[in-house]
Amino acid sequence: MTVQNIEKWAIFEVSLEGPSDGNPYLDVTLEAEFSLKGRSIRVPGFYDGNGVYKLRFMPETEGAWSYVTRSSSSALDGHQGALNCVAPTGNNRGPVRVRNKFHFAYADGSPFLSFGTTCYAWTHQPLEVQEQTLQTLAASGFNKIRMGIFPKHYPYNTNEPLHDVYEVIDGARDFDRPNFESFRHFEGQIGRLMEMGIEADLIMFHPYDRWGYADMSEEQNYRYVAYIAARFGAYRNVWWALANEYDFLLNTMPMDWWDRYFQILEEEDPYRHLKSIHNGFVTANYDHRKPWVTHSCIQNWDVKQTQAWRDRWGKPVVNDEPEYEGNLIQSWGNISAQELVHRFWTTMMRGGYAGHGETYWNEEEAIWWAKGGLLHGEAWTRLKWMRELLEQDVKGGLEPLGEAAKFPWSRVSGAADVESGTTYIYLGEHQPRIWTTGLPVEDGDYQLDLIDTWNMTVTPLDKATPPQGVAIRHGSVTRHGSPDAAFAVELPGKTGLAIRCRRKG
Amino acid sequence: MTVQNIEKWAIFEVSLEGPSDGNPYLDVTLEAEFSLKGRSIRVPGFYDGNGVYKLRFMPETEGAWSYVTRSSSSALDGHQGALNCVAPTGNNRGPVRVRNKFHFAYADGSPFLSFGTTCYAWTHQPLEVQEQTLQTLAASGFNKIRMGIFPKHYPYNTNEPLHDVYEVIDGARDFDRPNFESFRHFEGQIGRLMEMGIEADLIMFHPYDRWGYADMSEEQNYRYVAYIAARFGAYRNVWWALANEYDFLLNTMPMDWWDRYFQILEEEDPYRHLKSIHNGFVTANYDHRKPWVTHSCIQNWDVKQTQAWRDRWGKPVVNDEPEYEGNLIQSWGNISAQELVHRFWTTMMRGGYAGHGETYWNEEEAIWWAKGGLLHGEAWTRLKWMRELLEQDVKGGLEPLGEAAKFPWSRVSGAADVESGTTYIYLGEHQPRIWTTGLPVEDGDYQLDLIDTWNMTVTPLDKATPPQGVAIRHGSVTRHGSPDAAFAVELPGKTGLAIRCRRKG
Repeated sequence: MTVQNIEKWAIFEVSLEGPSDGNPYLDVTLEAEFSLKGRSIRVPGFYDGNGVYKLRFMPETEGAWSYVTRSSSSALDGHQGALNCVAPTGNNRGPVRVRNKFHFAYADGSPFLSFGTTCYAWTHQPLEVQEQTLQTLAASGFNKIRMGIFPKHYPYNTNEPLHDVYEVIDGARDFDRPNFESFRHFEGQIGRLMEMGIEADLIMFHPYDRWGYADMSEEQNYRYVAYIAARFGAYRNVWWALANEYDFLLNTMPMDWWDRYFQILEEEDPYRHLKSIHNGFVTANYDHRKPWVTHSCIQNWDVKQTQAWRDRWGKPVVNDEPEYEGNLIQSWGNISAQELVHRFWTTMMRGGYAGHGETYWNEEEAIWWAKGGLLHGEAWTRLKWMRELLEQDVKGGLEPLGEAAKFPWSRVSGAADVESGTTYIYLGEHQPRIWTTGLPVEDGDYQLDLIDTWNMTVTPLDKATPPQGVAIRHGSVTRHGSPDAAFAVELPGKTGLAIRCRRKG
Repeated sequence: MTVQNIEKWAIFEVSLEGPSDGNPYLDVTLEAEFSLKGRSIRVPGFYDGNGVYKLRFMPETEGAWSYVTRSSSSALDGHQGALNCVAPTGNNRGPVRVRNKFHFAYADGSPFLSFGTTCYAWTHQPLEVQEQTLQTLAASGFNKIRMGIFPKHYPYNTNEPLHDVYEVIDGARDFDRPNFESFRHFEGQIGRLMEMGIEADLIMFHPYDRWGYADMSEEQNYRYVAYIAARFGAYRNVWWALANEYDFLLNTMPMDWWDRYFQILEEEDPYRHLKSIHNGFVTANYDHRKPWVTHSCIQNWDVKQTQAWRDRWGKPVVNDEPEYEGNLIQSWGNISAQELVHRFWTTMMRGGYAGHGETYWNEEEAIWWAKGGLLHGEAWTRLKWMRELLEQDVKGGLEPLGEAAKFPWSRVSGAADVESGTTYIYLGEHQPRIWTTGLPVEDGDYQLDLIDTWNMTVTPLDKATPPQGVAIRHGSVTRHGSPDAAFAVELPGKTGLAIRCRRKG
């Protein structure tokens, strides 16, 4: 028997024939132990219908792996095999992990600057729309997408989904019988995103439902979470998002269920993918300090609070809904493109990550934020450009230049990459004619550039002489009223500008 | 002897000759009891130099008043007189008071919507600049000005003041000897503002000093506050502002001094003018709940927090520094005109009041925010228009339409006048194509208008059909995902718009 070569962080799949009588989804257990030398990893298997059982393994170490299965069914128990894990190729950089406390990196060490978008129900639309969505994503600069496993029932979302997620038997959904075709389709789209280098931020629960998915029993929910972990966990681009707007479900899903979902993921996902939970009301944030939460995933328009959220939770902040660009009647979906670009810059210049969504109304109710399809707005091009610009320099993550509670960083935003030292000062609604705060306090050899975040231009800046302060003594304290600096830069006096300062040589 | 007729809320002044030897500022006490029938009011007097002592009285009730003086000096003691208080005329509406908990009104009951500006040291500039300032104010729509009693030492403020506030003797200032000429000039300008219907928000202390005014002794400070109250209190347009940025003075003026200043004002100002204190750092707010504080006076750029501040202190919020329009190197003085107009609308639509300042750099360092002179920016015309627009309807004060912590009022801003019921929804950075949130939930006869806050236009709006929601049942809760409303309005899909809804008939 030839041993298969599998790239590190790719999927090794074992398919087995087993019992199809009764309800294997409920009754049959399957797992495998994958071993490399003395190390072993428990990998859960899953039922795929028609008597077919699968095990998926994502090796994270190169070398010779072997496995043996364990099952409650003798037909599935004790199967053995091997694989040879080889070096990754192409855009395979492994799963994204937390790095440097507040930031992310691929497993190969390359930085991941999260530029996500949102298409809640794109995998539930007609297939031609899904193809269009993938084409749009390919042209965009987004490297993460939030997407629901369940379809969405909501204004502008009244069409029937492509598949039922569970089987409909005699007109009623049976939440103990997955529609395996639906899961096969869904993971196919995770795979397409993986090929494109896009992280799939999978939303497990949400309140926008007319099919009963939001009203499954506690046991059904736990089994669903475990099934998803077993089935999708080997896709390196998967992130686990327990919910969109979990707090709107608290009347039927109490808080301890949410904690338990996290725990099940810890038990059933041997790869420890990123895990988060997303609030609805701004005041309803889950305690993201809990150990199973890898990063905070929030919605909040008040992006100058980004540092406060970092301080509160001590984890990366991903603000996936700082409101959406669009023109809907709903207040969460109608900010201007300029404002969304401004919120991205403000968020990243305060050490967090923002998310995109687009909600322009049209007769067909084909709105990107839920259905995918086409982008109609003006923010996405600026965000693509922003990502490319930042990726030139940012390696370890952008750390705020100062405490947000203290002048001047309460007012303007600035950050420096912890590895390259490249510094950015984002002035936003401020329009100084000359600037120095955040620039080096000792002179040296620097490359200075003016970034126009809306017009997407980079223009070299010369050093200028900073204005003199005025000594103001009061008691033992002397203030100057002007920022200390070795040099200044002269600016055109308009809004939406940033300054970049690179160390030369 | 003819009894003088004095308008209600005008100034009745008594001038007496008394001792000029020693230091009357320290040594001679003077007060009067003003009586109307069985009611009497203690009015403090003050020394005006050259053996001249004065008493100023602002009658608040029409009728026959009499007075008798009391003094430590026999030359000043026991003087008697009378005045006849008559109805006010012209723009004399009396002092501004707190009304409806979070709002202001003149003593005659007419509403006061605070549209203030800031010229810290305008009375210390050359006289021709002061005349220019008054002309500029007359053409502007501002009805309040923040102004320092002491001159200002700061970047762009290095020129010598017109007068020393205390006498310079042998090259040193003697803080026990006021320069009465300086005080006469200052109150003359308070009077000019009073004639123009502009409130004078008098700043007593600030840290920006090179003359020693910020380092007077505790006793000298207390005497200074009492002197100001006695001298300026009869001007109906006076507001007491203990400080600009009191927290930068805490290293030499501990907190109990600030409390004591307030208490002295309560003791020495029989008219109970409005009293406030102003922070520097955003985190350093005085406890504005203290009983002697009539309203919170703050600086904070984060204007969507206005309701939180109202809730915290239970008093009117005057955010006198939501940052200034300009282009300085200092981050407090370089936001765009659009942004400042946006912050005014956001603040007022959340039940507070904002303040203007303008800080455009020029070679002459003639900057409105400190020196007055000319306005160069673009916000002031919009604010004048805004005031005129709101004064058409707002009588009792603008109360927020909902809790800021809760959707949708965390995102957009809206308020209704408590008397007329006229409702405004300010959309700011939001650009819906159709809107209904905040409009009446029951149909009726309404006049609807679109307000373009930047272009200063008012355009009638027709009622439109609101989009249907979608019933989303989850447990016992049904949501619709769209706001409930009797009708909607269609909008042009741009930023900076407000909707006005008036009840007809």
